[in-house]
Amino acid sequence: MAEHAASVAVSTTSAGSTPVGPNPPASTVKSVLIANRGEIALRVIRACKELGIKSVLAYSEADADSLPVKLADQAVCIGPARANSSYRNAHAVVGAALAYRVDAIHPGYGFLSENADFAAMCEQEGVTFIGPASDVIKRMGDKIEAKIIARRAGVPTVPGSVGAIAEYAEALAVASDVGYPLLIKAAAGGGGRGMRVVQAAETLEKDLQEIMSEAEVAFGDPSVYIERYLTDIRHIEIQVISDGTTVLHLGERDCTTQRRNQKLIEESPSPVLDEELRAGLAEAAVSLCHEVGYKNAGTVEFVFDNISREYYFIEMNTRIQVEHPVSEMVSGIDLIKLQLQIAGGIPIAITQDDVRIDGHAIECRINAEDPDRGFAPGPGTISSFRAPGGFGIRMDTHIDTGYTIPPFYDSMIGKLICWGQTRDEAIARTIRALDEMVVDGIITTAPFHKKVLETERFRSGDFNTAFVAEYLSTTP
Amino acid sequence: MAEHAASVAVSTTSAGSTPVGPNPPASTVKSVLIANRGEIALRVIRACKELGIKSVLAYSEADADSLPVKLADQAVCIGPARANSSYRNAHAVVGAALAYRVDAIHPGYGFLSENADFAAMCEQEGVTFIGPASDVIKRMGDKIEAKIIARRAGVPTVPGSVGAIAEYAEALAVASDVGYPLLIKAAAGGGGRGMRVVQAAETLEKDLQEIMSEAEVAFGDPSVYIERYLTDIRHIEIQVISDGTTVLHLGERDCTTQRRNQKLIEESPSPVLDEELRAGLAEAAVSLCHEVGYKNAGTVEFVFDNISREYYFIEMNTRIQVEHPVSEMVSGIDLIKLQLQIAGGIPIAITQDDVRIDGHAIECRINAEDPDRGFAPGPGTISSFRAPGGFGIRMDTHIDTGYTIPPFYDSMIGKLICWGQTRDEAIARTIRALDEMVVDGIITTAPFHKKVLETERFRSGDFNTAFVAEYLSTTP
Repeated sequence: MAEHAASVAVSTTSAGSTPVGPNPPASTVKSVLIANRGEIALRVIRACKELGIKSVLAYSEADADSLPVKLADQAVCIGPARANSSYRNAHAVVGAALAYRVDAIHPGYGFLSENADFAAMCEQEGVTFIGPASDVIKRMGDKIEAKIIARRAGVPTVPGSVGAIAEYAEALAVASDVGYPLLIKAAAGGGGRGMRVVQAAETLEKDLQEIMSEAEVAFGDPSVYIERYLTDIRHIEIQVISDGTTVLHLGERDCTTQRRNQKLIEESPSPVLDEELRAGLAEAAVSLCHEVGYKNAGTVEFVFDNISREYYFIEMNTRIQVEHPVSEMVSGIDLIKLQLQIAGGIPIAITQDDVRIDGHAIECRINAEDPDRGFAPGPGTISSFRAPGGFGIRMDTHIDTGYTIPPFYDSMIGKLICWGQTRDEAIARTIRALDEMVVDGIITTAPFHKKVLETERFRSGDFNTAFVAEYLSTTP
Repeated sequence: MAEHAASVAVSTTSAGSTPVGPNPPASTVKSVLIANRGEIALRVIRACKELGIKSVLAYSEADADSLPVKLADQAVCIGPARANSSYRNAHAVVGAALAYRVDAIHPGYGFLSENADFAAMCEQEGVTFIGPASDVIKRMGDKIEAKIIARRAGVPTVPGSVGAIAEYAEALAVASDVGYPLLIKAAAGGGGRGMRVVQAAETLEKDLQEIMSEAEVAFGDPSVYIERYLTDIRHIEIQVISDGTTVLHLGERDCTTQRRNQKLIEESPSPVLDEELRAGLAEAAVSLCHEVGYKNAGTVEFVFDNISREYYFIEMNTRIQVEHPVSEMVSGIDLIKLQLQIAGGIPIAITQDDVRIDGHAIECRINAEDPDRGFAPGPGTISSFRAPGGFGIRMDTHIDTGYTIPPFYDSMIGKLICWGQTRDEAIARTIRALDEMVVDGIITTAPFHKKVLETERFRSGDFNTAFVAEYLSTTP
């Protein structure tokens, strides 16, 4: 019966399975200032502890009693509650880093994480910014330049104008190539702001003038561009990690389950990709990273057209993302630890062949919001908290019994990430965990997630970015 | 750059990766009585919920306020606190099963889980016992018969007598083959009871008479057997799962970190096995299962001689074990769900080739004991509990803030299981999680686990079953 026994592959005997080699060079990052709050601050603290890196948490007055402050090796208050006075205050953050003589700053997500000027300030002060170089943040943060870079890397982009549209004649020429309906987008917009759908050529001139005026007022920049308006799309993104030489991808995340352009549920793998599409997306993301000289963790975002089954680059997030645990759970790779190691000068010691995507992971963002009141944020005090437990369950959260959610920041209070061998098992496990989770004293989106996961539509995997809006409009 | 992208293997596209097929036959088990308590009761409840099986918890008066009672679909009190009046009371358990018309009984571990008479009673009453057939429990529960079966299956056993020793002359003959020191063991003993080391032939007759008399008094059975006394050993066991036709193994667990024959820390894979030994152990375990007609989950236990690097079968546990999560975390296979499905008549739909052991998992048994007072159990009320969280962390526990540990049962209050890509990462993550765990109001073994994990000896992987005793004797 040797055929039973011989087939168990034990990866620990394969040196290639460790992101850093058995005797990696010593990291130059021995202490890190964490310039963030909430679950991502806790996430970075945990990674630091596992690597023996000293963690110093920069926190605002509103977060003085938070769990990350308790668990960090050291904590320093950098200002008042309002983010502009603390978490978004580059001078306060860099000042704390210098005062505490840390080797590096981890910006988390949001706040200063994609602020090229902040990254440049870190570089000037000799503190390692854990992320790509400031000029890469800047270039990829400019949507028009990012699109140009993508095209140069051979990455498909949404059909439309290459750069900013200066006048109606140019718009008309592009429009005749792109077809109607089309989308006019402010170059400086984002998150659904500064966009207009143009249904036919008759209104193009008027719509163009109006959106340019609006962009001038809203963003101080009238630049717009034109894109094909895609109506039946999914949002699929590729997680990349690079040490500046080796660029790896950890497969895709499907973030199609959104409400008003805000991601609610993310999963990996995507239920709609075949191997050819999956390989094409990953190849595109890796090409883009090589083209721009990308270093550290990043996400290359695409729209996937359900009708044509084509994918188009939309933007790159030059930071760790909220939904990174989904990729961690299917790949086994700790992205935050890899970020810290790469920032410390340790090269990636595995190849793409060592990256194996196993099973299926689903993340639900647990927000302190009331779905019955238009998802209005509801800060308050948690009278009782109990995280769900057991096999395949991970809950990343900074909340605890007695914790009061400050009203100054976003409403996300934690992330439930569940792994299963199959998508069906991951869904069943997520529903079980949502049932088990206790967050008393406030209203959260946990029951809403359960309802969404129980729909036939979600289970089928066959939906698009309009799914949640349609679900909400048809459910009493 | 197609070579980057093409190499990600996504196992969800492989039908073989699901323990039960995409359209498995309907299970005949739609409701289960759980005849246990604590974390394993909660573990089974969770598995039931994920499979859509109704869970009915049979609990004692002492556990009326426990978390499993709250989380089960239904709960029924089957008797007073003392286990003999409730959890070990076969009539009370079967009676509850019949009253609630459940399809099956999950016995957990301990209590009635290896009681062949109980399994037979279930069979007679037409309630599916979730485990092997009662005659298999009986045969494997008899240490001498189990050894004979093992030899018949070609599985190596510790050199010694094949069956019970009846008289001195027989003992002397065996002893001359086995050599000294040797071990006389009561056939009905276990867990370190009813054993004696014989150093030389001079004392053999006297030792034999004494241990036989003691066994007669203690166990009502004077039968003994003789084995070679191995002094530098590890405890390594193979997890098996069978539907009666297909027998799979999920690799090994190394349970060498023990104190007084009680497991403290279990890990998988073992740090000392090479591929040939690993394959040999697994093959032996699978052969034994085929030989005895084993069905459902079980564990085949071996001693591994560090000096000769030989392994010998010692016993089979015909139930799920405390440390099963270690195998779940490296294989991705939910053993309790598989137990329920097999009991419901669903054949295993994967082959041994589909079982892939990935990374390293470590379990620490968290006991309400005081290591500074000889590990004396210390029941009490938990004033504050917070489970550790984040990537690779699993805590299986029924405790919560405000929970009072009843004094009637064993002192284990939870299990912390941590996964890492490598053994080093798993150790670092376990230490981090132990630091993060909050269990206030009682004394637990969590700090002791941390100290053990931090020793150079544990980190090296090079130790034997005497390691913890030696550590305790040399540490102030």
